[in-house]
This record gives sequence, C-alpha cells and structure tokens, in this order.
Amino acid sequence: GQPLTVIAGLNVLETPELAIETARQLKAICGELGLPYVFKASFDKANRSSIKSYRGPGLDQGLEIFRRVKAEVDVPVATDIHEIAQAEPLAEVIDVLQIPAFLCRQTDLVVASARAIHRAGGWLHVKKGQFLAPWDCKNIVSKVQEAVDGADITILCERGNSFGYNNLVVDMLGIGEMKKLGVPVTIDATHAVQLPGADPRTGGESTGGRREGVAVIAKAAVVSGADGVFLEFHPDPDKALCDAPSCLPLAGAKDLLGTLKALHAVANR
Amino acid sequence: GQPLTVIAGLNVLETPELAIETARQLKAICGELGLPYVFKASFDKANRSSIKSYRGPGLDQGLEIFRRVKAEVDVPVATDIHEIAQAEPLAEVIDVLQIPAFLCRQTDLVVASARAIHRAGGWLHVKKGQFLAPWDCKNIVSKVQEAVDGADITILCERGNSFGYNNLVVDMLGIGEMKKLGVPVTIDATHAVQLPGADPRTGGESTGGRREGVAVIAKAAVVSGADGVFLEFHPDPDKALCDAPSCLPLAGAKDLLGTLKALHAVANR
Amino acid sequence: GQPLTVIAGLNVLETPELAIETARQLKAICGELGLPYVFKASFDKANRSSIKSYRGPGLDQGLEIFRRVKAEVDVPVATDIHEIAQAEPLAEVIDVLQIPAFLCRQTDLVVASARAIHRAGGWLHVKKGQFLAPWDCKNIVSKVQEAVDGADITILCERGNSFGYNNLVVDMLGIGEMKKLGVPVTIDATHAVQLPGADPRTGGESTGGRREGVAVIAKAAVVSGADGVFLEFHPDPDKALCDAPSCLPLAGAKDLLGTLKALHAVANR
Amino acid sequence: GQPLTVIAGLNVLETPELAIETARQLKAICGELGLPYVFKASFDKANRSSIKSYRGPGLDQGLEIFRRVKAEVDVPVATDIHEIAQAEPLAEVIDVLQIPAFLCRQTDLVVASARAIHRAGGWLHVKKGQFLAPWDCKNIVSKVQEAVDGADITILCERGNSFGYNNLVVDMLGIGEMKKLGVPVTIDATHAVQLPGADPRTGGESTGGRREGVAVIAKAAVVSGADGVFLEFHPDPDKALCDAPSCLPLAGAKDLLGTLKALHAVANR
Repeated sequence: GQPLTVIAGLNVLETPELAIETARQLKAICGELGLPYVFKASFDKANRSSIKSYRGPGLDQGLEIFRRVKAEVDVPVATDIHEIAQAEPLAEVIDVLQIPAFLCRQTDLVVASARAIHRAGGWLHVKKGQFLAPWDCKNIVSKVQEAVDGADITILCERGNSFGYNNLVVDMLGIGEMKKLGVPVTIDATHAVQLPGADPRTGGESTGGRREGVAVIAKAAVVSGADGVFLEFHPDPDKALCDAPSCLPLAGAKDLLGTLKALHAVANR
Repeated sequence: GQPLTVIAGLNVLETPELAIETARQLKAICGELGLPYVFKASFDKANRSSIKSYRGPGLDQGLEIFRRVKAEVDVPVATDIHEIAQAEPLAEVIDVLQIPAFLCRQTDLVVASARAIHRAGGWLHVKKGQFLAPWDCKNIVSKVQEAVDGADITILCERGNSFGYNNLVVDMLGIGEMKKLGVPVTIDATHAVQLPGADPRTGGESTGGRREGVAVIAKAAVVSGADGVFLEFHPDPDKALCDAPSCLPLAGAKDLLGTLKALHAVANR
Repeated sequence: GQPLTVIAGLNVLETPELAIETARQLKAICGELGLPYVFKASFDKANRSSIKSYRGPGLDQGLEIFRRVKAEVDVPVATDIHEIAQAEPLAEVIDVLQIPAFLCRQTDLVVASARAIHRAGGWLHVKKGQFLAPWDCKNIVSKVQEAVDGADITILCERGNSFGYNNLVVDMLGIGEMKKLGVPVTIDATHAVQLPGADPRTGGESTGGRREGVAVIAKAAVVSGADGVFLEFHPDPDKALCDAPSCLPLAGAKDLLGTLKALHAVANR
Repeated sequence: GQPLTVIAGLNVLETPELAIETARQLKAICGELGLPYVFKASFDKANRSSIKSYRGPGLDQGLEIFRRVKAEVDVPVATDIHEIAQAEPLAEVIDVLQIPAFLCRQTDLVVASARAIHRAGGWLHVKKGQFLAPWDCKNIVSKVQEAVDGADITILCERGNSFGYNNLVVDMLGIGEMKKLGVPVTIDATHAVQLPGADPRTGGESTGGRREGVAVIAKAAVVSGADGVFLEFHPDPDKALCDAPSCLPLAGAKDLLGTLKALHAVANR
C-alpha cells in the first residue's frame, strides 16, 4: 500500500526563517520515517473571526517565502487560495493548492484553481465544508474533473462537521464515504478540533481549539482509512500568531508522526 | 413598531420581463398591505452543487435587468455578491447588497461590500452561515462597523443551521440572539427549507427543498421576532431554473404576506 | 377548527395548596379565553441530573394531590409515568397520561400506559425523544393503536431535538411531519428551551433553561401547526423546586395565552 | 498498561446452543490474544422500533441460558436491564449489568442496578445516551458512587450521539472526556453505526446499520483511548433476529480483535 502522506507546517507564514526551519525539521522527520512530506502554510487568513486578527504576509511576500522554502529545503509546498485572481500566481510556485472549507462550493474558484494547478502539474486539496455531507463531495470531484479533462488531481480533506453551535465533530465513517469517490482523503486534525467562536483567551473573538485532541483525531482518522494527515506545528505553539490553541509543538512531531505511521501500517496490513 | 419588511422576488434572474412582472406584482401586494418592499434576484448562482446547473445572466446583463426593474417598477433591489471586484459595479445599482451564507466569514469581501454599499447609501444584508452560531455574528457586525466608520448598515439574515447531513434546522431562539447585536434580522424562509444535496428529481445533483415548509418557517420566524422576510417566488415554480423545490407560486404571495403581516401585528402588539 | 388546547401547571408537585391555586388560576384564564385546559404536574422527577435534586412527593401523595385538585377545581389532570406498575393506579385518577421523552421507545411502558389510560377513557401524551425524528413517531403511534384495538388516544408532543452537546433545537417543520401521522401535536415549550446539563447556578449539576425563550417557542409552534401547548408556571418561578430557569411566572399566563390564542386564530383562518 | 477488554457476543439471545457456541469461540479467540473477555447478549429488546419485532426469550429463560453459558464455557456475562424489579434476579447471575442508553438518566433504575450488582461483586456498564454530552456523564458516575458507598463499579460506554435525524456520530474526543471522570470507557461500535429508524429492508420499521462501519469505529475508538470494545457477532449475521445490518460475522472476529489488540498496543506504547 501507499505510505501515509504528511502535509504539515505552519498555520500562517510569519518570518521566512520560521518557515524554512519548520520545513527543514519536518522534512527530516518524514524522511527518517519514510513518509512523503509537503510543507504547508497560509499566506493570508481571509476568514478570521475578527478584523483585528493577524492575517499573514499576503500573496506577494508569501510567494517569496514559499520560493525560499523550496529553494533552501527542497520540499513541495501547499497553501490555500481565496480569490480567483490568485490561482495563476500561486500555481507558479505551489505544488498542492488548497480550497478552504467555506469556499468548497464556489464553482468559479474551484474551477480556476483546478485549471491553474493542473497546468502546473500539482494537486488540488479541497477541504470539505463543515456543512457538507461526505457523499456530496462527489459534486466537487465532478466539477474538478470536468475542468481538467478528467484528470485525477483532487484530494479531499475532512476537517469536521458542524455539531450544534460552537462545536465540530469528525465522523470517522465519513472518511470511507469520501474514499468511495475514488480520491485520496486526508484528515486536517488541527482544524477539526477547533471550537468555532469560543476561544476563552480572547473573549470569543477568535476561534478556539483543543490541542490535546489533535493527536486523537489524527490517530483515529488514520485507522479509519485516511491516506494523509494535515497538521500545524510551531516551535512555540502558545506564541503562534493564529489558532495557537490547536497548534502542536514542533518538538513533538517525531513522536506523533511515528505513532501515526505505525497505526497506518497496522490498519492497512 | 416598524412594519414587516419584505425582500422578495426570484431565485435567479431569467428574462427581464419575468423580473419586471414579478417585481410589479409583489410591489402592488406589499403596497396594499403597507409593507416596505425590496425586489430580490441573483445574477449568478456561484455555488451550485453541479457545474451543469443554470447560473444566471452574469454581472453585466444582470445589472442591466436590475436597472430596468428600478426604472419601470420603481423599487429598491437586492442581490448577492460573490467576488470583491463586483462590489463597486453592484453598489451603483443595488440598494441591498447580500453576502451569501458560505461567504459570511470572508473578511475582504464583507469589508469591500460594506464600503461600496455604504457610499451608495444602501444596506448590507448578511446571510448567517449554516455553520455559525447566532451570537458569533457579532464579529460580522463589528467588521462592517469598523469598515464604515460605525454606520449601522448591517441586516442579519437567518437561513438555517446544519443539522446532521443533508438537513438544515432553523433555531427560532437564534433570531432573538441576533437581534441582541442591535441589528435588524430577516428570515430567509426559502433557503431555510432546502435539503442540501438531496433533490430526488436530479439524483442528488442539486439542492432539494420542501415548498410547503416555506410558509411555516416564515410564520414561525415572524412571531419569533424577525423584522423582515426573504422569500422567492415564480409565476410557475416547477419551471423555475434554480431551486424550484423551495420556490413559491407568485399567485399565493398575497395570502402569505397578508398572514405574515397579521402575525407580526399580534406578536408585536 | 379546534381551539388551542392548554396543558399547563407546575413542573413538579410541591404543596397541595400550590397545585390547587395554580390549577384554579389557569382554569379561569383558559375559561375566559375559551381554551380547553388540562392541569399538569409531575409527582416524581425520575431522571434528574443529580441524585440530590428534589424529586416530588411520589406516587401515593401525588395521587392524593391530583384528587384534591380535581375535586376542588374540577379540571382534567395530566402527569407522567415512569414505571409499568404505575399505569393502573395513575389511570384511576389521571386524564392525560404522559410518556417522558427518554422513555418513548420503551415498548412495555407505552403499551401498559396505553391500555390503562384507554380503559379509563383518557389520552396518552407521548413526548418525542430528543433523539427521534418526527416521522419515526409512526412506530409509537402504531404501538399504541395495536395495544388499544386501534383507538386514537395518542397525542404527540415536540420538546426539542439534540443539537450538538448541551443544546436542543425545535424543528418547526417537524410539527407538520408529526401531524401527518394523524394525531394531535402539542409543543412543550418549557422543556424545549432547556439547556441539558448546563445550569450555571448549580455548576452544571441540573438542567438549565432560557425562560425568555419559552414564549418564543410556544408562539412559533402554534403558527407552525401545533394543536396544543404545554407550559409550566409557578407563582414565584425563581423559587420553583425544579427547572426554575425555564419556568414562567403565573402572573404572565393570561397575556401569553391570549397571544397564543390570537396567533392560532390567524394561522388557522 | 491494561489489556483491551472485550465485551462481545450476540445482540439478543436466540437458542442456548447459539449462545454457548458464540461464547466458546469468542473466549478461545480472546484467550489466544490475551484479552479479557465477557460474553454479552440481551434477554429482552425492550425498545424495539416496532411492536412486531423479535424481543428475545425474556428474563427467566434468559437467565437460564446465561447460567448454562457460565457453566459450560466459564465466562463472565453481561446483559442489559430494563426495569427496577429485574435488578436482583439479574445480579444473581450476571457479572456486568448494563444500563441501556435511553435509560441512563433514570435515577431509580441506575441506583437499584448499582446496588444489586455491587453486592454481587460485579460492574455497572452504563451506555451514554445519544442525547448526553460526555462531561455530563459525571452525574451518572456520582449517582452510582453515592448508591454504593463510593465504590468504583462504573464503566461508561460510548455508543454514538444524535447527529440530525436518523443518524448517529461518534465523537472520538468524547472518549477522553469520559475518561477524565476516572472510569474505564468502552466503545459500543455495533450500536454506534446504527441508522435509527432507517433500515431500508423493513421500510423504516426497524433500526438500520452499516456493518462495514463497525470495525472503523472500533479501531478509531481504541486509538482514541477506549479501554474496551463492545461488539455483536453472529455466525450468520444476515439471519440474526435483531439488528442484522450492524451485526458482524463470527468468522471475522479473530482478525478484527487481533487488529484492535495491535492498535491498542501502538496507541498505548
């Protein structure tokens, strides 16, 4: 079988040095474990709860950092897209282009992203909306296929379903339902544990999380059939500029990824 | 107290004649009932389930139709925005600019829309995402206020919450929670009854609905405190080019709006 | 059409005097409004969150109080049953026997209750479980019909659906679904607003509520098709021995019931 | 650490021979794997959707079968209780007494069951209601402790949460929340995959299931921290007299339990 793919890095780009160092460490760990690795970071947090939240360096500076990461660390990189006009410039640098969950039903954005990243030989990583049933992802997969002459470039990502107010739940049975659509499926364990709108540190102004739950969701999803994991780290999680409550310490990456590899092997033996 | 506001029209623009006729009839009915009226139609359905679905005439032709409706029927008009670049051209014509539910957390779109429509003297009508708690709309209200120097131009709209897969539920207690944010609240009864991803007529390819439920949700929301109703009609609902299952017959508009007016009066006496 | 039925009284029996006085006042109000009235109170709260909570006077003392209420106020009475052995003694006194929501799927309890209350000429009022879809109540209706030779003695009651953790939501479209089963449907607005497990006054040990929401749910359900309302009052709600947070002041009963009657008339005209 | 406990057997007792053979095979498999084993079967299905469904042999015949299983196979046995009067006779034979999910809030049943099984030296296995938050199980744990002078005899069992209508979802983060209450936690993977009220084979009259999902939920829960698994088998699952759609083939037990043991070892290393 295929090894477990790891899409991991920073929630949002901060300094170039932080990106390079994080990519370097995660690449080394995944190399040791024999797991394919993609560096991930956002250049813009376009749907923060509050207008005052840190949003990232933006497209131009972001692309500059991604170029440096690729040049200095030699890894494929993943980032998310927010507007149609970003598709072409992103596809020049990015290997795995991500559609954010809230935007997974925006036809024009999905089509433009699919075409741009397909021309560049990359993949489209689509986060399943918190409002979307796993089987209804078939419409997304179809939209992409029609846009790129039937090429299989879609990876679907589970990141939790709305479960009442201010809570998400991951349905482990949904992973198998998404795989029935014939595409690889990843688990975004980092965002799946977030408690929308309920971070006690900021009086409810930004999105909270449950750091200790990230490993639980990653492990459970891997034994439920996930082909890859999506994880966000930081050398000092409490100082991460975005979504600190669900951010994992980089120092724990090796242990967690080793456990996930072992579970993946048992579940797929 | 204020009379019940009616934002009503077509799901999506089809011919100019249909728009004009629908606006004319609804304006006449609301005039008779003493209810403020805004004509609503979409120029582009940007998040249809399938790439093959009818999407509407697009921005340029859509604006042309809205201009004719305003000229010939003399009504304010409402429509939804999908991309930042549409904010300025839309604000030149549109009186009530709508943020779609899936996009209600996209900061740049909300801010650009708020600024453009505020300069034009209009309102911003924000559909609450199916994934958003009513109290968390405060972040949306704040974003808009910061964008337009504190002006009160936001109207919040309830259109249902994710309730398991392929179902929505309207929490009537949520209307009061949104009103606590100091803004008017409308009920989009048409979209609230949709069954996402489950229209049996199209094998699950487009979004289903429960026509008979629209009046139930509208009535219940009005007595729960809603300040306005959002409804979609068609002279021949089964032939509507989008979301036919939740579309109401124009011939029934007078009865329904009359009932809603009477309930609003009782509930607010 | 039928007038709106009112099943109302105390959450739980406290003193006989309180029961008699509450029944007397509510009977007078309903008489003035022309609404059929049934006095409701529980004799035992058998599923309190905590073992320390007040549970009521129990079966024997409870029946004694119900007998006094009937003798002194001349009203039909409703109460809930918790065990099969209570069916016969309760049916001797009670007119409307209630199956609690958590117990609505217990076949033996439903059958024994149906048979006992049917022999006594009364009704069976079944609260729909928080875990049950409205259409799945057909199995309850069938069980009762088979138990009592097809007699129509079932009244279904909506009291909210589980909506994530520690929250309930009333689906106003569910009322129509239950009515399709051919039985009258009531709304238990008092329990529908409870926040299971989250009363801040007791550190989460008993079930919380949102008093201001009771009228909202009652009004919305009445215009959504409910044939009756179920409400709990107390002369001094904050001193009610059970579920105080969702208890209404008796002094407000006339206003609320008058509004409900007026809304029922408009919705059914 | 502790080995993974296996509570497994039949959904409902059919013939004594079937119970004995099933217990014998599962005991042998668990013995080989070094996993503690408890035979489980119900003697009465007291909350079937339809009055026509098979319910089992009843208390007296059921106890007779359990006695034979214990005598001939030498295993501890588990079964569920439905009424207070069953507590004493059950505790004479049963080792692990189960409170059904719908009944987990019935104080008298929980207390009577706890006292009877504690005197007999057994355990109380409480299924968490589909309507109950994991942290709110603390009230159940407290009730039991007060009933048995603080003895630790409670095992909590996760079996899915209401997720919209006709669906359940297991929240893998809930397992850790229940463990924070200081008790062992099991996963009832068999019932967690049931689709309440939606078995297509019987026109919605009995509760459906997704057999292929049982292993997924069991594996995911074990790596999420579950201390034990609860599983229902049958030599010929499609002929099981109750809940066939979620029943596993006995022939696959060894493979599944072997995988669960291996995953438990990796997750707890």
